[in-house]
Amino acid sequence: MARRTRLYEGKAKILYEGPEPGTLIQYFKDDATAFNAEKKAELKGKGVLNNRISEHVFTALEGIGIPTHFIRSLNMREQLVRAVEIIPIEVVVRNVAAGSMCKRLGLEEGTPLPRSIVEYYYKSDELGDPMVTEEHITAFGWAYLDEMDEIVASSLRINDFLLGLFAGVGIKLVDFKLEFGRFYVDDDMRIILADEISPDNCRLWDIKTGEKLDKDRFRRDLGGEIEAYQEVARRLGVLPSADIRELAAHPKAKQADS
Amino acid sequence: MARRTRLYEGKAKILYEGPEPGTLIQYFKDDATAFNAEKKAELKGKGVLNNRISEHVFTALEGIGIPTHFIRSLNMREQLVRAVEIIPIEVVVRNVAAGSMCKRLGLEEGTPLPRSIVEYYYKSDELGDPMVTEEHITAFGWAYLDEMDEIVASSLRINDFLLGLFAGVGIKLVDFKLEFGRFYVDDDMRIILADEISPDNCRLWDIKTGEKLDKDRFRRDLGGEIEAYQEVARRLGVLPSADIRELAAHPKAKQADS
Repeated sequence: MARRTRLYEGKAKILYEGPEPGTLIQYFKDDATAFNAEKKAELKGKGVLNNRISEHVFTALEGIGIPTHFIRSLNMREQLVRAVEIIPIEVVVRNVAAGSMCKRLGLEEGTPLPRSIVEYYYKSDELGDPMVTEEHITAFGWAYLDEMDEIVASSLRINDFLLGLFAGVGIKLVDFKLEFGRFYVDDDMRIILADEISPDNCRLWDIKTGEKLDKDRFRRDLGGEIEAYQEVARRLGVLPSADIRELAAHPKAKQADS
Repeated sequence: MARRTRLYEGKAKILYEGPEPGTLIQYFKDDATAFNAEKKAELKGKGVLNNRISEHVFTALEGIGIPTHFIRSLNMREQLVRAVEIIPIEVVVRNVAAGSMCKRLGLEEGTPLPRSIVEYYYKSDELGDPMVTEEHITAFGWAYLDEMDEIVASSLRINDFLLGLFAGVGIKLVDFKLEFGRFYVDDDMRIILADEISPDNCRLWDIKTGEKLDKDRFRRDLGGEIEAYQEVARRLGVLPSADIRELAAHPKAKQADS
């Protein structure tokens, strides 16, 4: 593989310059972090699984008319995606009380919410991704109000679709995080879904047993992270056939860059 | 004074049953608390000053058509007010970055905001008054969306008026907190302004010197709390003529209740 330019390295992914203008290569790492990177580990095979799961979900979303940055899968750990100007807001959609919401609002984990609730967090590792409102977002110019309207409408459609997709395979979609970006085509700008959708940024509970099939296994030291991610991939019908730890054995070969 | 029923005691005020149905007596204490009551003190005369200042501001707001709970002043520490069903949301209007916003969003104190920003906090001592959004407020039924629309419109009018009122006496209105309640007349319900407006829940900076004339003097151990509150009252033309500590000498006599 030719040397290439690394544009950005995040906690779970790397973005490289793509083969043509307006594209990027999104590489899925095995690194897991939690609590604003205070807790770290390598979960062998996670990147391969998240690449597969996210490809599956983004393709399905394109199928219902949600524009996304996903173009095509390149290999086990990489996707070709559209280069976007990321809007610095994490959109969280919640169906059931869990995680930070329980602590903030004094709710017991697992309490069904009266309706789906959309929250925004300002993307800032330094500040610990503080919760913000449309007031802050529009006042500080992080996004325009009409962009946020589009993002909320899109997020609620995605929630409805994913509630169904996961319910169909016996999984309750508790909550999830989305990121959006501005995609420019000539003079035209569109808001499109970016980042990934995987057990790293969704809470997924087995409908029957309540078992957690997501990153909370890592956050809460429950163990069995890879088995849980594999189970999600298996139910969605996208589990790689070979053993996942075998596939993950040579991650460095895929990570060559300049 | 006849014995009377104490209905509620808060950190800085007591509410007694009023002389007729639909009314309450709001008593202003000298107690000061900060950081969710972890820090406490008695500031002799504060209650008298806040009663005067709040009466002045509420009367002025009624004058521009903002409905409030204020009916009339009863004595140095007490007001007759309308009994309302309090909406459990603290509305904070900010013109300049200060306090919790600086920490949360990484802003330097004193930074003018691009525009006035309205924030909501859920009234819960137990949870430390967490910031919430209209999403939480409407989903959990703390207020209806049309009530929040009315509250925001009213809060922005109050902000404009108070910016002018304080600017007129050389004070910059940095931010302030409001509470609203539902007031029922026969089958009719109106949203009206409740609680108080005083240096306890406003940030007020001298325009020329930047000196803090508000509760931050207490929160930050700057001293001179009463002198600052007196200065605000003096500039607004409502400073009691006698020495404030003399007036505060017999607070218990006013606090008799059943």
